Amino acid sequence: MNDFEEPIEKLIEYFKALPGVGYKTAQRYAFFIIENSKEKAENFANAILEVKNKVKLCRECGNYSTNDLCKICEKRNNQLICVVQEPKDIVSMEKVKSYDGVYHVLFGCINPLENKGPNDIKIKELLSRVQKNNVKEVIMATNPDVEGEATAMYIAKLLKPLGVKVTRLAQGISIGSDIEFADEVTLEKALKSRQEI
Amino acid sequence: MNDFEEPIEKLIEYFKALPGVGYKTAQRYAFFIIENSKEKAENFANAILEVKNKVKLCRECGNYSTNDLCKICEKRNNQLICVVQEPKDIVSMEKVKSYDGVYHVLFGCINPLENKGPNDIKIKELLSRVQKNNVKEVIMATNPDVEGEATAMYIAKLLKPLGVKVTRLAQGISIGSDIEFADEVTLEKALKSRQEI
Repeated sequence: MNDFEEPIEKLIEYFKALPGVGYKTAQRYAFFIIENSKEKAENFANAILEVKNKVKLCRECGNYSTNDLCKICEKRNNQLICVVQEPKDIVSMEKVKSYDGVYHVLFGCINPLENKGPNDIKIKELLSRVQKNNVKEVIMATNPDVEGEATAMYIAKLLKPLGVKVTRLAQGISIGSDIEFADEVTLEKALKSRQEI
Repeated sequence: MNDFEEPIEKLIEYFKALPGVGYKTAQRYAFFIIENSKEKAENFANAILEVKNKVKLCRECGNYSTNDLCKICEKRNNQLICVVQEPKDIVSMEKVKSYDGVYHVLFGCINPLENKGPNDIKIKELLSRVQKNNVKEVIMATNPDVEGEATAMYIAKLLKPLGVKVTRLAQGISIGSDIEFADEVTLEKALKSRQEI
């Protein structure tokens, strides 16, 4: 498609690269930029550059941070580590206000289909953190799918000899959902892990 | 919401300003930028700036263009003008490959509720184009709603004394649609304008 002159077409292409954006949506975004003030466009462009210039990975946990050490690592209980696959998982976990430990981002999970082995994710770094900080508990919060499950099991096996408690997020039916629509694997898990009330 | 450090939060805000983008989607876009290469982010930022620097309005028709005169005005039959409300309407009209005339963008329509009168849209410019270029026909392609309709009627009244033919896009049932779901106003129009086969 080449409906527009080159600068517009180029901007549409960049918007189209964003996740879940098709040509028509990208075109709407581009027109929004064209119709808006020059100042706003400049601020937008600067915000993109600033994020790339200022945001790096926390040297401890791998979370996005503007400092060497992220805000969470700076002041929270570092003897409790929650292991997640991606930085964005931290955002979700942080909504649980009661959690006061730190995080560890694996940057993926073990996935043979994608040629990702244990050495391609940050497992070594986790082990050295556990030993260095005398960690008491590691909570595995990898995704509840086959790869996330396998990764959690693999890491648990490596951690146990170090004498650290390894736990996994509970699996079962979601709050507010319907038994009617729960899938059988989830229901089986929920039944197996049933608790006395 | 203030889940992120300042540069990330700022970028999310700018993405959220795009039409139809909520906080969650803006967050996805921002993370995409963070996770992508610095080069791509720089190109993206430059594309935004370039569009603002290079794209202006065609001095004849008001379409977005990198030159004083847009590509359409440059080489097409300027005695046939199609009047649209916004530059993006030209994109839709241009999909009709058989049209070989030029356009005129009004930048809105007469809308008393929004305090937009005839002097707030480019009617004067249209009149002077019609006189200057000895235009044979003006096609009104404003939106088929109350305001678009009123604007078309208003402009037609001004143009007719100049001896130019003024037409309106036909209204009726859409190709591929269902009679069952057509609204009554559309059906009434379609019935009134029925044609012998």
